[in-house]
Amino acid sequence: MTRLSVIGFDADDTLWQNESFFRLTEERFAELLADHAQGDHLKERLLAAEMKNVGHYGFGIKGFMLSMIETAVDVTEGRVDGHVIGQILDMGQEMLRHPIELLPHVEDTLGALSDRYPLVLITKGDLLHQEQKLAASGLGEMFAGVEIVSEKVPSVYSRAFADHGGAEHAMMVGNSMKSDVVPALAAGSWAVYVPHGLSWALEHADPPEGHPRYREIADLAGLPEHVAAVAGE
Amino acid sequence: MTRLSVIGFDADDTLWQNESFFRLTEERFAELLADHAQGDHLKERLLAAEMKNVGHYGFGIKGFMLSMIETAVDVTEGRVDGHVIGQILDMGQEMLRHPIELLPHVEDTLGALSDRYPLVLITKGDLLHQEQKLAASGLGEMFAGVEIVSEKVPSVYSRAFADHGGAEHAMMVGNSMKSDVVPALAAGSWAVYVPHGLSWALEHADPPEGHPRYREIADLAGLPEHVAAVAGE
Repeated sequence: MTRLSVIGFDADDTLWQNESFFRLTEERFAELLADHAQGDHLKERLLAAEMKNVGHYGFGIKGFMLSMIETAVDVTEGRVDGHVIGQILDMGQEMLRHPIELLPHVEDTLGALSDRYPLVLITKGDLLHQEQKLAASGLGEMFAGVEIVSEKVPSVYSRAFADHGGAEHAMMVGNSMKSDVVPALAAGSWAVYVPHGLSWALEHADPPEGHPRYREIADLAGLPEHVAAVAGE
Repeated sequence: MTRLSVIGFDADDTLWQNESFFRLTEERFAELLADHAQGDHLKERLLAAEMKNVGHYGFGIKGFMLSMIETAVDVTEGRVDGHVIGQILDMGQEMLRHPIELLPHVEDTLGALSDRYPLVLITKGDLLHQEQKLAASGLGEMFAGVEIVSEKVPSVYSRAFADHGGAEHAMMVGNSMKSDVVPALAAGSWAVYVPHGLSWALEHADPPEGHPRYREIADLAGLPEHVAAVAGE
């Protein structure tokens, strides 16, 4: 049996920009409500609403829009102007329509690796929006499988890699320590952390320093060499 | 080869109540904005917003909440009170937390059929919420597979049934002529229409009268007999 038989990739902030659009929208949201609350306080309130709501909204822009609206109602004690609510809706719809911006080295790396391994996209978020982003990215043909999931836990990785030799022969690549690295290692896979710089507060976790199947790389340009080393080529 | 090797089920309004909660919420929404627009006009505006938005929100409660909020802003020309927006958010969150109400004969029918055929759940809507509803329904163990999809087109049925003998040996059961019956027939499957009484305006389609693989039944109690007839037992 080969040591490595499949490679999984996270999507948002691993293949294309995502968090930066949330940050930008957050800034605009803070400006919109500047008369009612200070920027930092407002962002804290928004994060608290997101944390409260993630259990029933899940991940993605629609839930973010609803949490922004809830925060706007709360911080103004119900005095928020309807036009402001309309602007929040516009901001969210703009995020949903935003063109895909691929991260550096994504096309070359995926192109090279997809010739030698089946690649599987494993991402969470709004089902329809993730499908639309993949279609718009032009990367769809490179993936042998796509899994859009509500939560990234070890069993999700076991299942996603089951058809391709199993999690022990899989490598997961992503920018979230909490969602991509830690649960993939727990499932028995290799895991590669590609930090993005920006990451959402709910995605933080401690790095598994010293774990024999863990590696951090600066960007995807370093991935083929690491893959070759793991595969024992 | 057996004629029938797998049975697919829609979820909302086929296994459990769904549309009735949307209708109830729509009534409350109309009451909330009664000072600004007449009930019928308001529902028309809401439906128009839902149709405009379904392409980027997809199906499910979060998109419905956002369309209600947009409609509230629009019909009041921005004068909607923040407390009203807060109430719309509360109404939507209540829908998300609503307990599952199984439809008649669901448990008996699924129990009997799951002993003889793999059953696959094929549903659209918000990923997380559909997973939560399936878990809360207590029916999860009866399904060999679960597919939560953004749109029910023939290729979705071909893919969902591929691991179980293919769409030609599959039967799809559901309450939507447009999403469950017509595309499943197009994929080459048998299709059983179980009308629910209430159905969303975006789910209407003409019945495929005279199609040799189409059947309408009043409720799931009639399904085992039809399955036996199709299977040639």
